[in-house]
Amino acid sequence: MNYCSACGAPVTKKIPAGDNLPRFVCDTCQAIHYHNPKIVVGCIPEWDGHILLCRRAIEPKSGLWTFPAGFMEIGESTEQAAVRETLEESQAQVERICLFAVLSLPHIGQAYLVFRGPMGSPDFGAGEESLEVQLFSLSAIPWDEIAFPVVKDALCRYVDDVTRSEFQVHVATLPDRLT
Amino acid sequence: MNYCSACGAPVTKKIPAGDNLPRFVCDTCQAIHYHNPKIVVGCIPEWDGHILLCRRAIEPKSGLWTFPAGFMEIGESTEQAAVRETLEESQAQVERICLFAVLSLPHIGQAYLVFRGPMGSPDFGAGEESLEVQLFSLSAIPWDEIAFPVVKDALCRYVDDVTRSEFQVHVATLPDRLT
Repeated sequence: MNYCSACGAPVTKKIPAGDNLPRFVCDTCQAIHYHNPKIVVGCIPEWDGHILLCRRAIEPKSGLWTFPAGFMEIGESTEQAAVRETLEESQAQVERICLFAVLSLPHIGQAYLVFRGPMGSPDFGAGEESLEVQLFSLSAIPWDEIAFPVVKDALCRYVDDVTRSEFQVHVATLPDRLT
Repeated sequence: MNYCSACGAPVTKKIPAGDNLPRFVCDTCQAIHYHNPKIVVGCIPEWDGHILLCRRAIEPKSGLWTFPAGFMEIGESTEQAAVRETLEESQAQVERICLFAVLSLPHIGQAYLVFRGPMGSPDFGAGEESLEVQLFSLSAIPWDEIAFPVVKDALCRYVDDVTRSEFQVHVATLPDRLT
């Protein structure tokens, strides 16, 4: 950030009065510009003991696999965001989704909210951001071709829970080197 | 947003190529400026069958009660944010906190992540943003003086869960008129 988005004048990074962290403050209109973590919402679509994964058509990590996920938008709930991302990336409709994991990535300012839920039908296809979309049995997940460590972490937790037949809501923080 | 925070030129709200929502796009450098929902992280501190609430010293809703809560910062996890906000607003140290509710407020672009957890000691006091801090038995919660409907909603769910001796992770969306 170089300029104030309100008035267009230059900004300076400094700690505002009453605050304890540096923020971008406008030299002219004094507006304080906060940068906050972003929410990434994802979903593991389930069908008949399989899960649906997408091969990314876009950078970063084009060509590698992930479950549908993306940035939450203003105006939607976390569940709506998960359903929308699933539809956009895999053309699949998920139903009765449950929160499955809240995974923080502090060093890049993101929090992943990962849901899971059954597909309403076995219909799916590659959305604009996917090269291909495929159902995988849990024993055939392409572990060496997963796009991001946070996706691999969530999938590991998912497979563990399915194996134990006991789902929980995982809350965890991923270390820097893993994300 | 009126000006590009990267180059200082005016921005125009329009749908970028490949997108489906309007964004602020710089007329000069073409930078796309996304506005995303903010994460508010809160915690219900517990001590001996009581919960700790803070009477707000700042607007909005100065003078009304809330559990400690505030915007998550870049560089921290959701749990760290909940512990920090609790310490800042109530001078209490919470331990072994558990995620309790994920409450979306779509119309104002916020998602609340509410934790609960025991205080390490009965020490507490008013932080800079609080007029006073007080332990309440669940039958004495000041329901008519709660700062925000989302706080009241979370407290209702908390009291229900305690009454049933069964905690879950609540995922819900608050309607416009309630927030």
